[in-house]
Amino acid sequence: MLSKKEIKDIQSLDQKKVRTELQLFVAEGPKIVGELLQIIPERVQKVYATAAWAEAHGYLKKLIAVISESELQKIAHSKTPNQVLALVQQWPQTEPRLHTDFCLYLDAIQDPGNFGTIIRIADWFGIKHVVCTAGSADVYSPKVVQASMASIARVSVYYDADLSWIKKQTASIYAATLGGAQTFSKTHSGILMIGNESKGIRPELLQLATTQLTIARRGEAESLNAAVATGILLSHLLS
Amino acid sequence: MLSKKEIKDIQSLDQKKVRTELQLFVAEGPKIVGELLQIIPERVQKVYATAAWAEAHGYLKKLIAVISESELQKIAHSKTPNQVLALVQQWPQTEPRLHTDFCLYLDAIQDPGNFGTIIRIADWFGIKHVVCTAGSADVYSPKVVQASMASIARVSVYYDADLSWIKKQTASIYAATLGGAQTFSKTHSGILMIGNESKGIRPELLQLATTQLTIARRGEAESLNAAVATGILLSHLLS
Repeated sequence: MLSKKEIKDIQSLDQKKVRTELQLFVAEGPKIVGELLQIIPERVQKVYATAAWAEAHGYLKKLIAVISESELQKIAHSKTPNQVLALVQQWPQTEPRLHTDFCLYLDAIQDPGNFGTIIRIADWFGIKHVVCTAGSADVYSPKVVQASMASIARVSVYYDADLSWIKKQTASIYAATLGGAQTFSKTHSGILMIGNESKGIRPELLQLATTQLTIARRGEAESLNAAVATGILLSHLLS
Repeated sequence: MLSKKEIKDIQSLDQKKVRTELQLFVAEGPKIVGELLQIIPERVQKVYATAAWAEAHGYLKKLIAVISESELQKIAHSKTPNQVLALVQQWPQTEPRLHTDFCLYLDAIQDPGNFGTIIRIADWFGIKHVVCTAGSADVYSPKVVQASMASIARVSVYYDADLSWIKKQTASIYAATLGGAQTFSKTHSGILMIGNESKGIRPELLQLATTQLTIARRGEAESLNAAVATGILLSHLLS
């Protein structure tokens, strides 16, 4: 049985401040926990699981605390928690050096669902680095981890707080805007810049762009969701 | 000032049963309420707004009840409500007859964020009809309305509860799967079928497909978010 203190400690990982201090984050559900155990087993510090999940993963015995459904309900962020929750160690964020690869640059993507979905898209398209400005969601927040479907363990995320990283890049910078070119040349290197959900890309960054790109619109919606736009642009640029 | 009963009545529109009974739904925030007032003004039944919004929209005087921030907080679904909330009348769902246009068919898209985002994508690409199976999210649920960014007022949504609609179609049916063709011929008519977030398209529907389509994968993520996949496939099929 979990003590009140343990429950409180796990719940407090909802806050970025606590996550950073302890260098931990929470992953939930058999799909995501299972993937993290495959990709970064050495970083999974503790697993809280219901009896059925624990039994099916006997080889993890030393890591697992068996808990009840109602205990899982208390410690999980999800409203409909599912079998298992893990505490995972964060890893160092390293500044990416671009050589011949392709990278995403996010200007203040605030919605954690969008942010996590974009990391999952990057992983689908084989992109290894996502760089983002301050004001972007925290990569270790529960909703980002969830929406990324464990892709946060395969894609490195780096926060370019003072914009110094982007300013020294010499690769082509493609900016997603509403008034750019609607035809796309394929590429294998460069940076795709995606703007904030309501404000777009800030002028200071937009002026660094080599090319502005726009997804052809045939209907009447004013804009597309930021993650959807990222997926469409990458599929035309890279595939 | 709002009465307790009024607050309770508005809150109860969170439930599908109540929405259907009263044939109403809730829209929130200046962006979405503003769009609905432009697209379907005759269906906006009542507007609850803070003093500033009410003042800027004086011509709507008869519709508006001026409320305080704390009252808005009580009646809004959003955790960070913004200036205005409207009660809007639902409209009849009509069975689409396809002639030469393109249509989406959703098999149990359950996440309201995904469902709303897909309607917004349809609207961007000029698609007028979205048909979905039972088990899909309710088009009038607050999160769908929000994620659609008012596109629900421009795209018709029809529930094909017993699959009879899809079974009588003679147009080409493109199914999004993980093992289909990765090259796409452009088209102007047909149906794109998208499956449930975790289970994909049910076999009974998949066997109706003329062609299976897959987005080329270069990395390691197992799948893409359903809305992102819809956007990518439409951008290749239609643009």
